[in-house]
Order: sequence, then C-alpha cells, then structure tokens
Amino acid sequence: MDIATIIGLITGTGLLLWAVMGKSDLGTFMDSGSVAIVIGGSVAAVMVSFPIRNIASLTKVMKNCFFAKNPDPHVLIADMVKYAEVARRDGILALENATADITDPFLVSGIQMAVDGTDPDQIESILMSDLEAVEQRHSDGKAIFESFGRYAPAFGMVGTLIGLVIMLKNMNDPSKIGPAMAVALITTLYGALVANLFALPMADKLALRSRDEMAVKMIIIKGVMAIQSGDNPRIVEQKLKTFLPASRRSAEHAQGSKAAA
Amino acid sequence: MDIATIIGLITGTGLLLWAVMGKSDLGTFMDSGSVAIVIGGSVAAVMVSFPIRNIASLTKVMKNCFFAKNPDPHVLIADMVKYAEVARRDGILALENATADITDPFLVSGIQMAVDGTDPDQIESILMSDLEAVEQRHSDGKAIFESFGRYAPAFGMVGTLIGLVIMLKNMNDPSKIGPAMAVALITTLYGALVANLFALPMADKLALRSRDEMAVKMIIIKGVMAIQSGDNPRIVEQKLKTFLPASRRSAEHAQGSKAAA
Amino acid sequence: MDIATIIGLITGTGLLLWAVMGKSDLGTFMDSGSVAIVIGGSVAAVMVSFPIRNIASLTKVMKNCFFAKNPDPHVLIADMVKYAEVARRDGILALENATADITDPFLVSGIQMAVDGTDPDQIESILMSDLEAVEQRHSDGKAIFESFGRYAPAFGMVGTLIGLVIMLKNMNDPSKIGPAMAVALITTLYGALVANLFALPMADKLALRSRDEMAVKMIIIKGVMAIQSGDNPRIVEQKLKTFLPASRRSAEHAQGSKAAA
Amino acid sequence: MDIATIIGLITGTGLLLWAVMGKSDLGTFMDSGSVAIVIGGSVAAVMVSFPIRNIASLTKVMKNCFFAKNPDPHVLIADMVKYAEVARRDGILALENATADITDPFLVSGIQMAVDGTDPDQIESILMSDLEAVEQRHSDGKAIFESFGRYAPAFGMVGTLIGLVIMLKNMNDPSKIGPAMAVALITTLYGALVANLFALPMADKLALRSRDEMAVKMIIIKGVMAIQSGDNPRIVEQKLKTFLPASRRSAEHAQGSKAAA
Amino acid sequence: MDIATIIGLITGTGLLLWAVMGKSDLGTFMDSGSVAIVIGGSVAAVMVSFPIRNIASLTKVMKNCFFAKNPDPHVLIADMVKYAEVARRDGILALENATADITDPFLVSGIQMAVDGTDPDQIESILMSDLEAVEQRHSDGKAIFESFGRYAPAFGMVGTLIGLVIMLKNMNDPSKIGPAMAVALITTLYGALVANLFALPMADKLALRSRDEMAVKMIIIKGVMAIQSGDNPRIVEQKLKTFLPASRRSAEHAQGSKAAA
Repeated sequence: MDIATIIGLITGTGLLLWAVMGKSDLGTFMDSGSVAIVIGGSVAAVMVSFPIRNIASLTKVMKNCFFAKNPDPHVLIADMVKYAEVARRDGILALENATADITDPFLVSGIQMAVDGTDPDQIESILMSDLEAVEQRHSDGKAIFESFGRYAPAFGMVGTLIGLVIMLKNMNDPSKIGPAMAVALITTLYGALVANLFALPMADKLALRSRDEMAVKMIIIKGVMAIQSGDNPRIVEQKLKTFLPASRRSAEHAQGSKAAA
Repeated sequence: MDIATIIGLITGTGLLLWAVMGKSDLGTFMDSGSVAIVIGGSVAAVMVSFPIRNIASLTKVMKNCFFAKNPDPHVLIADMVKYAEVARRDGILALENATADITDPFLVSGIQMAVDGTDPDQIESILMSDLEAVEQRHSDGKAIFESFGRYAPAFGMVGTLIGLVIMLKNMNDPSKIGPAMAVALITTLYGALVANLFALPMADKLALRSRDEMAVKMIIIKGVMAIQSGDNPRIVEQKLKTFLPASRRSAEHAQGSKAAA
Repeated sequence: MDIATIIGLITGTGLLLWAVMGKSDLGTFMDSGSVAIVIGGSVAAVMVSFPIRNIASLTKVMKNCFFAKNPDPHVLIADMVKYAEVARRDGILALENATADITDPFLVSGIQMAVDGTDPDQIESILMSDLEAVEQRHSDGKAIFESFGRYAPAFGMVGTLIGLVIMLKNMNDPSKIGPAMAVALITTLYGALVANLFALPMADKLALRSRDEMAVKMIIIKGVMAIQSGDNPRIVEQKLKTFLPASRRSAEHAQGSKAAA
Repeated sequence: MDIATIIGLITGTGLLLWAVMGKSDLGTFMDSGSVAIVIGGSVAAVMVSFPIRNIASLTKVMKNCFFAKNPDPHVLIADMVKYAEVARRDGILALENATADITDPFLVSGIQMAVDGTDPDQIESILMSDLEAVEQRHSDGKAIFESFGRYAPAFGMVGTLIGLVIMLKNMNDPSKIGPAMAVALITTLYGALVANLFALPMADKLALRSRDEMAVKMIIIKGVMAIQSGDNPRIVEQKLKTFLPASRRSAEHAQGSKAAA
Repeated sequence: MDIATIIGLITGTGLLLWAVMGKSDLGTFMDSGSVAIVIGGSVAAVMVSFPIRNIASLTKVMKNCFFAKNPDPHVLIADMVKYAEVARRDGILALENATADITDPFLVSGIQMAVDGTDPDQIESILMSDLEAVEQRHSDGKAIFESFGRYAPAFGMVGTLIGLVIMLKNMNDPSKIGPAMAVALITTLYGALVANLFALPMADKLALRSRDEMAVKMIIIKGVMAIQSGDNPRIVEQKLKTFLPASRRSAEHAQGSKAAA
C-alpha cells in the first residue's frame, strides 16, 4: 500500500487523539447514533447516487490501486527492451519461455497474444479497451469517494440539527443543555473528519495512482506492439521513453544529457 | 427500479428514524409550515427556473430512467448478430418475423425502417435525432433535480430565519424560546435531507443511468445500420463491441484473451 | 409571459405568506432600512459590475424573453415550406404579398431582403449578426440576474452585521435585544428570498428561453436561405427539420416512424 | 470614468450610510484595528499571490480601463473608411497629414507603420502582440481584484475570530461583552463590503471594459491592414463591420435592413 | 526570493500582530494542541492525498521557484543572438568556449548537445521532456499548496468542534466557559490564517512564477534549435521574440514602433 497513505492516516488520527486526550477522554467523543447518521446517511446517499455495480467494484478498485505495486517505468522499459532482443534473436515464439516468470496479467496477456500471432490491430484494440475499462473503474471509484466526502459533512449537519431540535424541545433541565449540545456537535465533527481525513484525500490519491498505472499500461501496450512488429530493441527503447510520465523524466534526462555530454 | 436507489432511500430514512426514535419521538420533527416553506418554496423556484414543458416531462424521464430495465449490452450484441445472420441468410424481409417478439420500441422502429427499405442515411438520422432527444430530456431532468437540490437548503434557511424572527420578536415567555427555536431549525433540517438524501443523489443516478441507456441505443443504431448494409455477422459483432461502454468491457476482455490464448 | 414563471412566483410568495401569517403578522417582516440595504446594495454592486448599456437593455431583454411568444417550431417549418411553395410556383416576388400578415420582424426582414434580391451571403451575414446580437443581450441579461442573485445574500449578511453591531453596542435594555436581533435577521431573509425565489431562477429561465428563441431564429435563417436558392419545398422541410431543437424532436420522430411503417 | 461605476459606488455607500445613520452613528462602525486586519491582511495575501510587476501595473490598468474613453465602434469604422479613401485617392503617404489629429496612440502607431512602408506581416504582428499584452494586463488586473475579493472576507473572519478570542478570555465584566463582540463583528462587515461593493464588481467591470477595448483595437488592426493593402473603402467598411462586437450590432442591422428595404 | 512574497508575508503577519498586541498579548493566541490539529491534520490529509514522491519534491520545487532568479527574457534573447553570431562566424564548436560562463544548467545542456552534434530532433525532444517534467512538478506543487489551503480551514473547524464538545460536557464552572471557548476558536483562526496568508497565495504565486519560467525555457529551446540549424542571428532574434510572454511585450513594442517610426 502507498506508504504516504498509511503514514497520513495514522499520523492524522494520532495527532487528533493526542490533542483530545490531553483535555478529555475518548469516551466523550463516542456516540453510536452519530455514527449511524453520518456514516449510514452518507453511504445511503452514495447508494442512491451510483449504480450498485460501481459500488460493488469499489473494494477491488481500492485493493488494486493502493496495494498493487506499480512497476518502476524505467525497469519496465528495460524489461520490454530485453523481450525485444529475445524476439529479434530467437523469434517471437521464444518469448513464451522468456515470459514465464512475469506476474503482471496485463503484460502476460499482451505477450501471449503476440506469441499466438493475433492480428496486431486486434491486440492493440483489446489491450486499449482493457486499459479504458480500468481507467473508467478508477474514475468511477474516485467519483464515489468524492460523493462520500460531500455527503458526510452534510449528514454531520443533519445529525447536529436533529440533536439541537431534540435538546431545544426539552430545555426543562438547564444542566443537561451543555452535554446534549455536545452530543449534537459530535456528528458535525464526524462528518468533517470522514470527509477531510479520509474520503476527499483518498479520491485525490486514487486519481494520482491511476495516472501512474495508466502510464505503465500504455508503455506495455506500445512495447508489445513494437516487439511484435520486430522493431530493433534500441528503437523500442526510444519509442517507449516518450511514454514515460513527465514526473519520472528528470532522472532519465539527467542520464540522457550526461550520455550526450 | 434500480435496486441501489431503493436500498439507499430506505436505509437512509431508516437510520435517521432509528437515530431519532432512540432519543425522541417523530412528532417532534413534524411541522406542516416547514414542509410548505421547504418543499413548496423549492418547487416554486424550480418552476420559475424551468419551462413548464421540462417539468411536465420529469415524471416520464424518471419512470423511463429508473424503472425501464436496460438490456445487458452483451445480450443485445448477441441479438443483433442473430438478426444479422437471419438477414444475410433469408434476406432482410425475413427480419419482420424474427423481430416480432422484440419489445424495445427503439429497436423495433430501427429494424422496421430497415425492412421497409428506408434510405440508410434517413434511418440513421431519425434514430440519432431520437437518441439526442432522449439524452436532452435526461439532461434537462438532471438539471431539475440539481436545481431542486440547490433550492431546498436555501428555503430551509429561509424558513429558519422566518422562525427566528418570529421567536425573537416575542421573547416575553422564556420557556417558549427553546421549542420555538426547535421548530425554526426543522426547516433547515428538511432542506438538508431533501437535498442530500433525495435530490442531489437522484441527479447523479439519472446521469449514470442515462450514460448506460445512450450506450445501448448507440449499439442498436450501429447494429441496424450494419444489418441493413448486409455485413457479415462476425463483422457486425466486432463493430458493435467497440461501442461497449468501458465499464462493461473487462468481462469481454477476459473472454477475449482466453479465446486468444 | 411564461406560465411556469408566474405560477412559481405566485405560489412561492403565497406559501411563504401562508407560513408566516399562521404564526405572526406581515408587519413583523417589513423594514425599510433592510430593503434599502439588500435591494439598494445589490443594485449598486450590479451597477459597478456592468456597463450602464447592459443594465439599460435589461428591461427590453426581459420583455422580449418572457412575454414574446416563441412560435411553435413545427408550425414555423410548415410556414416556411408554404413560402417555399409560393416562391417556386409564382416566383420569389410573389412572397411580398404572401408575407403581408407575418408579424415576426426577424422573419419579415429576412424575406424582404430575399424579395429585394439582396446577395445571399449578405442576407445570411446580416441575419446571423442580428441573431448573435440577441444572443449576446440574453447572455448579458443572464449575467446580470446571476450577479444580482450573488450580491443579494451578501448584502443581506451586511445588513444583519450592521444590525448586530448596533444591537451589541446598546445592550443596556435586555428587553430590546430580541426585537433588535429580529430586525437584523430580516435582511438576511430578504437577501435569501430575492436570490432564491427571483434572481437565480430568472437567470436559468432566461437561458432556457434564449435557447428556444435561438433555435427558432436559426430555422428562419436557414429557411430564408433555402427559399431564396429556390429549393424544392420538400427539401426545405427536410433541411429545416435538422435544426429542430432536440427537446422538440420526439413528436416529429413518432410521426416519422409511423410514416415509415 | 464609467458612469455606472461611479453611480454604483456612491449609491451603494450612500444607502448603507443612510441605513446606519437612522439607527446609530458612524463612529460605531469605525475601528482602525479592523481596517488594518481586513485591508492590510488582504493586500498582504494579494502580494504573496502575485509578482510585484503585476501589482505595480494595476494602477495603470485601472486608469486606462476606467478613465480612457473607448471610441464608438461605428465612429471608428467611419474614420477608418475615411482614411482608406484618402489613401486610395492621394496615396498612402497622404495619410501622414490626415492623421495628424488622431490621439489614440495605438491607431497612430499602426498608421505610421503603414505610411513608413513597414512590411504588412510585421505591422500585424507588432499590433497583435501589443493587443495581447494589453489583454494580458487586463486579465492579470482582473485576477488581482478577484483575489482581493476572495481574501477580504477571509481576513474579515480572521479579525472577528481574533476579537472573539480576546473577548472570551476576558469575560469578567459582562457589560463589556456586547461592545467587544460588536467590534469583533465589524471586521466581518468590512470584509463583506470591500469584497461585494468594490473588489468583485470591479473585477467584472474590468473584464467587460476589456472586451470592448479589445474589439476596438481589433477593428483598428484590421482597418490598418486593409488600408495598407489599398482596399476599396466600401470593402474596408464591410470587412470592419464583421468585427463589430455583437452587443453593438443591432443598431447597425436596423440601418442595414432599412437600406435593403 | 520573490520580493513581493516576502513583503506580503512580513506585512501580513506584522499587521495581525499589531492588531492583536493593541488589545491583548500574544500568549492568548498560543496553543500547542491547536497547532497539532490544524498543521498536523492538514499535513496528514495532504499525505493521504499525494504520493510521497510529490511531497518530497516540494521543497525543491519551492526553492527553484521562489529563489532561482528567472533571467530577463530580453537579456536572454540578446544572449541567444550573440551565441548565434558566434556559431555562424566561428562554427558551432566555438560555442563550447563562449558558453563556459553560462550558469543555467538547462541552457548549458542544450548548447552542449548542439556542440556534440546530437540529432536536432533528439535535442528538442530531450529539452521538451525536461521542460514538461519541470512544469508537471510545478503543477503538482501548486496542487499540494491548494490542497493544504483547503484542509487547513477544515481541520481548524475540526479543532473548534473538539474544543466545543469538551467545553459543553464540562459546564459546571461557568467562569471557565469563556476561556475554553476562546481556545476552541483559536484552531479556526489558525486554519484561516494558514490557508489565506500562506497556502492559497503561495499556490497562485507558484503558478505565475512557473508561467514565467516556462516562457524562458521555451525561448532557450527555440534558440538552441535555431542556432544549431545555423540561422541568421537576425532571424533568430525575430523567431525568439514571438515567444516573449505577452506581459513582457509592451516594452519591446515601444522599441519596435519607435524603430519603425
């Protein structure tokens, strides 16, 4: 899983706990009704907003996106160049053995189709449609997180309003006003935390991880196409480097300009 | 109707009721004046915003969009391929019988025109203009829901302000301040619930259902055009698969890459 | 005037009055200083925002847009086809009599230029530049309403702040705090009502009415051009139908597919 | 200066003063610390946001944009046609005298280059780059006003929070709570007024004035190019009229269609 | 470092201190728990939002962007013209000495590649990919500042809610209510200050500095390409001037039109 995500979630929660514990105890901030309204209400609103299919695939999207380790693009390019050399030297069928230890199913399926002699246009079209399907799933996943981050504060306010109305209707005992209002405010607090420490940041991270994953998949597609057409390994390398994501280029350039110097 | 919509609406309402009932009774949250201001005011604002024609077609849009079951695109493509086989084997007129049991009026009208020998350009233009009209209606429907979701909280605040002003002008009896303020806050609560549990999520769902329906209609149009031009059924299948919505492609790819392997 | 606009404004105002009258009297909500701050302040901000020319043309834009009845596009197309028949049968000069009873000045000016033998490119350019001028005026009008709808709540808050400051500086007599605060809140209420029941919905309606009017004007332009070039009336009809706004197409399609069947 | 800007600023300020004076005196609303926080804080935030160069040119942008009177586009076109006649009749060198009384430096520089026989492409490129530089300055100026309008309310809130914190820490004397809170609220009031009566409306006016000025400059560029290429004055007029801003076209059309009739 | 940034930050902080010190002491506004919640919470949310790689490069982005002095584009163009003269007169290899004292590594690497006889397409592609990498880093850096500016006020509110809940649960001693509420409000104040005096303005400044730096880098790329292709120095100058950022053009135009006059 992305290390910054874990550090962020743990540090954020830890700091809040530390700030709270110094002045009060955690029990003050626990209220099952508030959890029901904020989490339950937001999840309900998300279910009304999205088809069940999108919500069902969310767990998979999150697992793929946060736990699957993206290969380093430079290593991937080196690998593709190696496969291109094998294909050029020993024929494309030789790739079948060379790729026995690849684990990325997207890369395996691409090379397998090349080995099987599938029509190049069809290989590209199948791989591209797979890439688009993954991108669409990521984008739908991001939309769900954003939606959750928008509804959580709204239901936090709903909960606070409910608490205030109940409190205001029963103001006979002044000593209970403070605690009742405290409980009412807890839902707003829950809503703000769920949105700002979890849902909205997760939506952003998902989009950025998706950008990286798409870049890697694009390098694979272009690499498989170049290998199948029997390109010179050196040309393959040059072609693939133009698909390096901009954020990864400076290292390459440093090498490039040193080589040129 | 979309199952997630129903589950979301019922769960959301249920959780809120449960949270409320634990501490108070429902009567506390009932106020006819508040309903009049929030619902009445928002509906009035929506009527000022949209032509009567758009509002009138909203019920139809909702019925079509939430209750009409979209055919599975894969099944639809299989059907189109079957019609293409019939048309190729027995002539296009044979489709008249083959399509006797189709219920989708859009598909029926497309195939009927093909059987009648209508000019291909005219068929495409008529079907496309129908697709655009449906899409426009969906988009207008979404705009109405969004508008409703924007005005409901605004009139919730209007109602609360009215209640506060009345309360503040009559502060002779301090024991009535609490309950009066509670009633004032109920309109804000109503506005937030109507917007966040109903109007805004409905707008999103409408847009996503529309995306699916448009994809299906596009497959029908392209299918009818391919059948009429007498394409080979295998080509028809390939053509139509490129119109599969990205979110539906992964299954197909799984089969595709297995087939290729 | 658009019927939904009137119904919306009357219903909305009526419901609010009903909700208010049940608990208080209208006098409670009248305050000339608040009107000065909210309406006066917003109008002042709008005047700083827009050139005097745009503001001056607003009354005209509203009159044209809300009271001028747009012709039904289907009737208009039928009329254009009728003129095309006259022009084809009796020569374009015969149109001069046939059009004696047209009232739409845009259509009159178009046909008059055609009868006068004005160069087709010049006719189209003059009519298009007129259409663009109207569209720009509508769009500037919408911007003014939106601006008004943004500044009204802001000056509502300004008025409330002024009221609160005055009240807080003179808290000697506690019995006056409530009423003073009530008056302070009235400006926020005014601002919210002006924006959400009038200005913002009006901006939306203006945009949608403009969309319809532009579609009608475009049909007129294309019709005049087709008539002048002596097109066959049947071709004129086909050409013009492609300019029908999508929201009006379903009826036509229903007929179209029935005719084809 | 634009007359609506002055009227708006004076009326707005006047109405607020009138509303305030009726119930209190102006001194209540004066507080030097609040001015420091709202104006000083917003200006500081704007300085962090923009390069010193952009802020320095703001006075010039405002002077040019609000005080420089844009020539009437119709008069300008008539002038350009007159110059075209002179150039055609007496040779382009004759323009040197004919333009002795022009004051617009942009027009002077354009005609001077034409008289000097500068290469047409270079004339157009120099004038266009000047136009773009002015447009960029206007757009940067608008961004500064918008930024100011966004930070003023934020620092208004900052000031109110500072005031509230100070007040809450010293609540020994209840009689001082009201006045202290009044002073705290004044910063929010300042922020709202600065943003909504000055900064945001000014940003909008600047954009609209810029649109007009760019249209005039474009007519000048196209006119100089046409004059230099020795176009027939009648053609020059036709060419230039297509660059009339849409908002100014209706008058022209009225004449156009009358002429045609 | 950009002078306006420093002035803005110092003036803004100074004014706030002055406003605070006049009425209270700074100690009133110090609270370690509030710092932990606002700064810690926002940083945590930013870490969940962005990959660790982007956050790590932020210091570098800030250093480059705020401290690195962009060369004056006019001076840079003059330099490029000088190099073009050297290359034309003494051959491109002579540039190796002429460029010994250049410090900009981007320019050095470009000229070095030209001297080495690297393929022009490859030079352009390497320099462009480096430019895009820098632009992407700036844009990611801006996104981090914006994110920080969005989360800081949110965690300010979270801290205030925590403080309010604790206070409301322990209302036995009324004399502590005021100070407790003051502390609670301090987090909201921190959040507003961090966002509006630091994070959001920094994001804007970063974008504007980046625009300037990209313009300079583009002039270098185009200059190196022109020098390598052996263009006439005068042509080099003309080509490069079309890449001057619009905001820098007016000076040039003044000279241009004087020269033409």
